[in-house]
Amino acid sequence: MTRKIILDCDPGHDDAIALMLAHGNPDIDLVAVTTVGGNAFLDKVTRNALGVMTMAGITDVPIAAGCTRPLLRQVEEAAEHGESGLDGVVLPPPTVALDPRHGVDLIIDTVMAAPPGTITLVPTGPLTNIALAIRQRPELVDRVQEVVLMGGGVHVGNWSPVAEFNIKTDPEAARIVFEAAWPVTMVGLDVTHQALATDQVNDRIAALGTPLAEFVLGLFRFFRQAYRDTQGFDFPPVHDPVAVARVIDPSIVSVVRAPIVVETVGEHTLGMTVTDLRRTAAADCHTQAATALAADRFWDLVVDAIDRLGKAKTDA
Amino acid sequence: MTRKIILDCDPGHDDAIALMLAHGNPDIDLVAVTTVGGNAFLDKVTRNALGVMTMAGITDVPIAAGCTRPLLRQVEEAAEHGESGLDGVVLPPPTVALDPRHGVDLIIDTVMAAPPGTITLVPTGPLTNIALAIRQRPELVDRVQEVVLMGGGVHVGNWSPVAEFNIKTDPEAARIVFEAAWPVTMVGLDVTHQALATDQVNDRIAALGTPLAEFVLGLFRFFRQAYRDTQGFDFPPVHDPVAVARVIDPSIVSVVRAPIVVETVGEHTLGMTVTDLRRTAAADCHTQAATALAADRFWDLVVDAIDRLGKAKTDA
Amino acid sequence: MTRKIILDCDPGHDDAIALMLAHGNPDIDLVAVTTVGGNAFLDKVTRNALGVMTMAGITDVPIAAGCTRPLLRQVEEAAEHGESGLDGVVLPPPTVALDPRHGVDLIIDTVMAAPPGTITLVPTGPLTNIALAIRQRPELVDRVQEVVLMGGGVHVGNWSPVAEFNIKTDPEAARIVFEAAWPVTMVGLDVTHQALATDQVNDRIAALGTPLAEFVLGLFRFFRQAYRDTQGFDFPPVHDPVAVARVIDPSIVSVVRAPIVVETVGEHTLGMTVTDLRRTAAADCHTQAATALAADRFWDLVVDAIDRLGKAKTDA
Amino acid sequence: MTRKIILDCDPGHDDAIALMLAHGNPDIDLVAVTTVGGNAFLDKVTRNALGVMTMAGITDVPIAAGCTRPLLRQVEEAAEHGESGLDGVVLPPPTVALDPRHGVDLIIDTVMAAPPGTITLVPTGPLTNIALAIRQRPELVDRVQEVVLMGGGVHVGNWSPVAEFNIKTDPEAARIVFEAAWPVTMVGLDVTHQALATDQVNDRIAALGTPLAEFVLGLFRFFRQAYRDTQGFDFPPVHDPVAVARVIDPSIVSVVRAPIVVETVGEHTLGMTVTDLRRTAAADCHTQAATALAADRFWDLVVDAIDRLGKAKTDA
Repeated sequence: MTRKIILDCDPGHDDAIALMLAHGNPDIDLVAVTTVGGNAFLDKVTRNALGVMTMAGITDVPIAAGCTRPLLRQVEEAAEHGESGLDGVVLPPPTVALDPRHGVDLIIDTVMAAPPGTITLVPTGPLTNIALAIRQRPELVDRVQEVVLMGGGVHVGNWSPVAEFNIKTDPEAARIVFEAAWPVTMVGLDVTHQALATDQVNDRIAALGTPLAEFVLGLFRFFRQAYRDTQGFDFPPVHDPVAVARVIDPSIVSVVRAPIVVETVGEHTLGMTVTDLRRTAAADCHTQAATALAADRFWDLVVDAIDRLGKAKTDA
Repeated sequence: MTRKIILDCDPGHDDAIALMLAHGNPDIDLVAVTTVGGNAFLDKVTRNALGVMTMAGITDVPIAAGCTRPLLRQVEEAAEHGESGLDGVVLPPPTVALDPRHGVDLIIDTVMAAPPGTITLVPTGPLTNIALAIRQRPELVDRVQEVVLMGGGVHVGNWSPVAEFNIKTDPEAARIVFEAAWPVTMVGLDVTHQALATDQVNDRIAALGTPLAEFVLGLFRFFRQAYRDTQGFDFPPVHDPVAVARVIDPSIVSVVRAPIVVETVGEHTLGMTVTDLRRTAAADCHTQAATALAADRFWDLVVDAIDRLGKAKTDA
Repeated sequence: MTRKIILDCDPGHDDAIALMLAHGNPDIDLVAVTTVGGNAFLDKVTRNALGVMTMAGITDVPIAAGCTRPLLRQVEEAAEHGESGLDGVVLPPPTVALDPRHGVDLIIDTVMAAPPGTITLVPTGPLTNIALAIRQRPELVDRVQEVVLMGGGVHVGNWSPVAEFNIKTDPEAARIVFEAAWPVTMVGLDVTHQALATDQVNDRIAALGTPLAEFVLGLFRFFRQAYRDTQGFDFPPVHDPVAVARVIDPSIVSVVRAPIVVETVGEHTLGMTVTDLRRTAAADCHTQAATALAADRFWDLVVDAIDRLGKAKTDA
Repeated sequence: MTRKIILDCDPGHDDAIALMLAHGNPDIDLVAVTTVGGNAFLDKVTRNALGVMTMAGITDVPIAAGCTRPLLRQVEEAAEHGESGLDGVVLPPPTVALDPRHGVDLIIDTVMAAPPGTITLVPTGPLTNIALAIRQRPELVDRVQEVVLMGGGVHVGNWSPVAEFNIKTDPEAARIVFEAAWPVTMVGLDVTHQALATDQVNDRIAALGTPLAEFVLGLFRFFRQAYRDTQGFDFPPVHDPVAVARVIDPSIVSVVRAPIVVETVGEHTLGMTVTDLRRTAAADCHTQAATALAADRFWDLVVDAIDRLGKAKTDA
């Protein structure tokens, strides 16, 4: 049975791959895309989403622009993605139209229109849209199947020694999402730092030989240099599609059930996803944290999706 | 020229009077009412709003239910308003229908449908609805004429030594509203504690001789006892209509221009509206705090509005 | 019966006057002086204390240097006191020797050597020394008669909209002092801003005709200009001797018994002395706040002390 | 060359072993012992220290009682150590006398009396004494050789998901100690949870056959049951002697140089020792964190010390 997901994203190099995996994989049905100010300002990430969708032939999925800024904190862009938020490639003129609704409304409408328990939310940016949606419509919490988000981490930080960018950018929104009584899977840096676009990965994509594969290589080329310069990585971690992969095949991303709370006050720990691993979690614990990635099988999924989309585009 | 206002409230005894003043006064046009969880849970305050509007003959104003709870904090009811949120009176069965939209959407739609600069927001409860509205639609900040809110205080607290109920209930929402670059007038406890429903005020209302006047006396009777028991007042402060009165006739409520920020972290000061009175404020300071009330003229307005509504109801 | 006090200070222009009042007034016995980093760095305030004591003929009182910096916060000097911490006068070479003990030890030794309940602490700087003393020797809390400190305020701030310099400089030390179960009288900005060195005050001091009076006029001259420039005052508030005056004659400084706690976390309220005036305080409430100053009688005490010291010096 | 250490402790079962290792090992010179309220109230831990020293024949080392409570927080006892703070053994009547000085003064005096750079501080309880000592005598920071403390952790907590008991008990004191510009080695839970008193360890100690060995087995017996009940361990981690072992032979405890700061504000992270492992630390970074323990060689040291002390006692 295919899983229906809403991808709430801020493209972003790795969000672009998440979009391709979500639409290119046959076991998943991408029913809506929403954007949120995060890796770059809202107008940039929305333009990038439209461009990536055009490039990848994702033309039948509604996409709406969401929140421009975090609930309380100031906007902060992530240098890893360059000036445009998606440096390294030239986007085609978008042939995809923006839905006139606000992103929060598209989320609410999509979930309320589907049967209960059938929509999974996959946020890969700051959690502002999701938080606003459930504060405005608390009944969404029961109606959504689960939330599988890219963000946070148990033992690894990037935007501070112990906090990750998406969570630290809007910690109050993250707190709202983690506290809500729906199943939350945190796909954090502990595993996404294992999703590295190595030379071997690049070779596999290059072998696909489609314009879309070329496009992806362009994304990886810039991202690699950016991560080398700003965070000292040899190969760039491609975070966001790992959350999508977890929905497609849970066995690819191991998890541990544990209470997770978001620190919104700390001087040195703002935005930390505090995970209590001291004891086995209670059976009704609604949060879990990703702990390990089957990297080869993850890349199999990604390469396959890029291949399918690339061929479909060429055929069209 | 009449002023158009949206009353965002949580009735509540004093909210009920604010509703009457807003609709009964000829210089003001009440264009929408929204409710928010605050003095009591959302279902109670919404039912109370519908009942008060029915009682007061306010049948032509759209009313919608808004947020059930604060952005981050837990809901907390205010004992001053009794079990129902409006103890002391029997509400008639509502003849007013609830707008199907969410309160936040009613605020957004109403402001966007009116010409720019023509709608004033008058929140008299926690600021959750207003905060969500501008985070979802930032363009509202420019489009609203001004915000005149009941809440906070410069030197007086009630829910803590230095914080007031509406602000302390949802300090993060309050911070969002005070930080937005629109004109904000804080009508706080410094002045609303001067708006006392004294024996003389009760006598004037009793002299009106209408069922609505009787209803108001019932509200004041309960409210007086509650404030005596919980906060040691001889007469109850009728907070919320003071904000409405400020819109009707600014000369009734003196203000001082000063920077105001909301404390969202403090251990003993959570929800304090920190007002900087050390220096004359800069000309572009967008916040001001109420400092004094012309109580007699305030009550003139309130009594007149109850009189008009009561007679109109009797005539109908 | 004379009252024995330890003056813990950071001279500072107003501390200098506090020293003179404490030693020049016949109803008080200045048994020790300790210095603390505050208005200026420790070496400056200690040199200033020695110089003022020399100038005022206070040669028989032990003086020791205390803590160089606040418990947790960084040192911050107060511009109001100029480069030396006591700009505007030339200090004589000190003829008073520094006690070799640490200030904290001098406080401990002095209190433990005196009969229980006979020593009053009068801190007029940050409360670091006092806090360290009672954390090291908790028995001091019972043994001290009372603490009458200059610092804080109920409704007035200077180092922030709601915090005063001494408390905000070391809020954690202040919290320790206010939480300890001894009687604490907070002589804050609400009253010390009434202790203005007006033209009339200057005239009275000028009329004394002693070198010490000249010295005081020099202090006031600089202090006046500094307060005009930095805080917009016409005449400078001479804070610190008000605490000494309260010990000499409690009727000069009215107080209200009320719970007072120090905010150590707040983003906008750090160092606020949160005073709960909502209800009459419980009988066992150990804190009280100064609310009003009999300014004329205060200056009578100060002028008299300067006169006595000045004449004694001239006679010597 | 033997290393001179001051052990600042709160016995406590593992502190008892630290005392034995510090005095029984020939490469180390235990020059002073101070106690601090922590695992149990000050009077208990002081009595326990005297008893353990008596039992182990440590009769020539000055011992003084220090602070009774944390700087700001309330005292909290650790259940792991039972009612007495050292349940499971019967202490002999102490033949060791308490130094009349305060613990903080003993630390100050000992460091100031020794040549610069020759004294290492080994705190194994809350850091209150050490913090007070350097706030009172800042020159200690330069004069001490290094600080090797048991407390904190990089990825492991016990008193919260991310904080350890000693640090969380007095986070402000810990912040003072970690911020001071002396070399600080944090021997935290990451490694001390590897110092388990297994059956094998117990067998080795039993084989020593001395009354002191019996005493140690009694300590381990109680500690094992307590850790099983409260934290779900099979064998109890014997934390404190690991810090002493690091001084004796640095190769037993691997470390990584990294910036470490103490969180004093966080809602969920209070007392966390936030360690920045994202990049290689700067050469002048003065903090380092223990990462791995050579457990066998650690226990060799401990067993050897117990053996030496036990035989010396029997010989005496």
